Amino acid sequence: MSIKIGIMGYGNLSRGVEAAIRQNPDMELAAVFTRRDPVGVKIKTEGVPVLNESELLNWKDKIDVLVLGGGSATDLPVQTPKYAEYFNVVDSFDTHARIGEHFANVDAAAKKGGKVAVISVGWDPGMFSLLRMVSDAVLPEGKHYTYWGRGVSQGHSDAIRRIEGVKDARQYTVPVQESVDRVRNGETPEFTARQMHTRECFVVAEEGADKARIEKEIKEMPNYFADYDTTVNFISEEELKANHGGLPHGGFVIRSGVTGLEKEHKHIIEYKLTLDSNPEFTGSVLTAYARAAYKLSKEGVSGCKTVFDIAPAYLSSKSAEELRGHLL
Amino acid sequence: MSIKIGIMGYGNLSRGVEAAIRQNPDMELAAVFTRRDPVGVKIKTEGVPVLNESELLNWKDKIDVLVLGGGSATDLPVQTPKYAEYFNVVDSFDTHARIGEHFANVDAAAKKGGKVAVISVGWDPGMFSLLRMVSDAVLPEGKHYTYWGRGVSQGHSDAIRRIEGVKDARQYTVPVQESVDRVRNGETPEFTARQMHTRECFVVAEEGADKARIEKEIKEMPNYFADYDTTVNFISEEELKANHGGLPHGGFVIRSGVTGLEKEHKHIIEYKLTLDSNPEFTGSVLTAYARAAYKLSKEGVSGCKTVFDIAPAYLSSKSAEELRGHLL
Repeated sequence: MSIKIGIMGYGNLSRGVEAAIRQNPDMELAAVFTRRDPVGVKIKTEGVPVLNESELLNWKDKIDVLVLGGGSATDLPVQTPKYAEYFNVVDSFDTHARIGEHFANVDAAAKKGGKVAVISVGWDPGMFSLLRMVSDAVLPEGKHYTYWGRGVSQGHSDAIRRIEGVKDARQYTVPVQESVDRVRNGETPEFTARQMHTRECFVVAEEGADKARIEKEIKEMPNYFADYDTTVNFISEEELKANHGGLPHGGFVIRSGVTGLEKEHKHIIEYKLTLDSNPEFTGSVLTAYARAAYKLSKEGVSGCKTVFDIAPAYLSSKSAEELRGHLL
Repeated sequence: MSIKIGIMGYGNLSRGVEAAIRQNPDMELAAVFTRRDPVGVKIKTEGVPVLNESELLNWKDKIDVLVLGGGSATDLPVQTPKYAEYFNVVDSFDTHARIGEHFANVDAAAKKGGKVAVISVGWDPGMFSLLRMVSDAVLPEGKHYTYWGRGVSQGHSDAIRRIEGVKDARQYTVPVQESVDRVRNGETPEFTARQMHTRECFVVAEEGADKARIEKEIKEMPNYFADYDTTVNFISEEELKANHGGLPHGGFVIRSGVTGLEKEHKHIIEYKLTLDSNPEFTGSVLTAYARAAYKLSKEGVSGCKTVFDIAPAYLSSKSAEELRGHLL
């Protein structure tokens, strides 16, 4: 009997989850839910219903885990606590400053309903968090560095698109090689944001727009660009489509630490992701944690969990004997 | 109240554990046990007793976790099941072909005594296993590659030392760069052992020994060298001490997988370790898992565990709130 997955929303991330389910024979897609008129939403999996969100609670007994594909700004703070009472859920909540609050809300709902909720799943937060945490425990005297890119930041691309006169835009986050080399070499400097990443923008301006003003507005935008060395390239719509159509991303976490009675030995732990498709990889991580939520729930566990709280074996479709035999 | 650690044995790995305990303020070294006459064993931690193994069972109530520093060939198959009945234990058992048997023996003993035993902890098996397993669950369609080195293989160095006419030796395992480049580039070839690693040997011959015969014996040694491109360099004892005194090691695990409805997107996960001291890093991993064994035992858990069975948060001295606040 396979694990029945429901997906809330049908954006890039949800489509990544839909594709990942096909690669996991112990799972099946049960239904997709949308806030839009479902008639207008065409999914890629034949024979699976698309329903309005208003029908979701009728599916309580037909779905083992509900994956929430929405965004952290407005969707998940509402949806995850709302549905964690009725379903085992997994989300990709990534607003670091609000994780404490989100955890508390989701935990209360999941415990009330006797369900398992896994929040902040993906690659960062998610896989990168796991690596930061385990490396911090193994090498307690040290520092960690997180680099993102080279890859498309959807949040930064959106920020550029909101500027007047901008038709479309793509922003790449790029690690500064000199700083990476120092860390890989065992140095443990304090870096400013500017020393770790640069930002490359590709912008399609509207006909007759003031490009100098657009460039200035991008470069001076607080939080997003002002603290970085930012380059702005104006390109045609055709060029954007031809050369910047994908959503590649990635990055790496480096832990640099010392051991020995005199702290005389250095150790470098590096975890690196090179991803052709950010949403499909993130969707694959969510799918593995959906399996974990299902298994934990079967064991009678309830409440909110993060990647720190889940033993790795729960992610796998393989038995404990297979894991010990082939992957240990 | 700190976690009281006992160490069985006092070789390189045990000394790595002793050093790691000092970096973890929630732990203290309670005692070191040896099969030798304890009078001849001088440890680095002042005020801590060194005792003969025969006294170990008298320490049942004075030790929270016993770390077994012995080897996989003859020590651990006996010691881990023997002591898992009386202590929470952690070992670094790494004979892959016998892990099933070892797990069963240790599990029976630990369950009988109501204790937690964590086996096969270190970096491979250990951290590399964790990465192989999690990456396999996240990218189920793909292949993984494990490269070791450049670093000193103590097993291969010992094998050379057993050859007649050899006074001392150091063997480095070295990844073949061409094969690494292909994998990092997204190819997923089937490799022979020879295509993945070469073996570099530095040998001190005894006065008047037949070097040609020694070189031939090394290169033709089954399992250890015959399946690899092996180079043998004869050097002086002084040169060995000056240039090959350390025990650096490391390596990397690469998972190469695809996602998407047409499997059109490639993803590369790479986990890389660069270690100045193999035994000190391994000791640091054992120490973190000793904390996990202690915490699990406090929760009433018993039986044999591997890195697959333990939620990451158990490794850390930090609270769940701290972990979510700073490392998620």
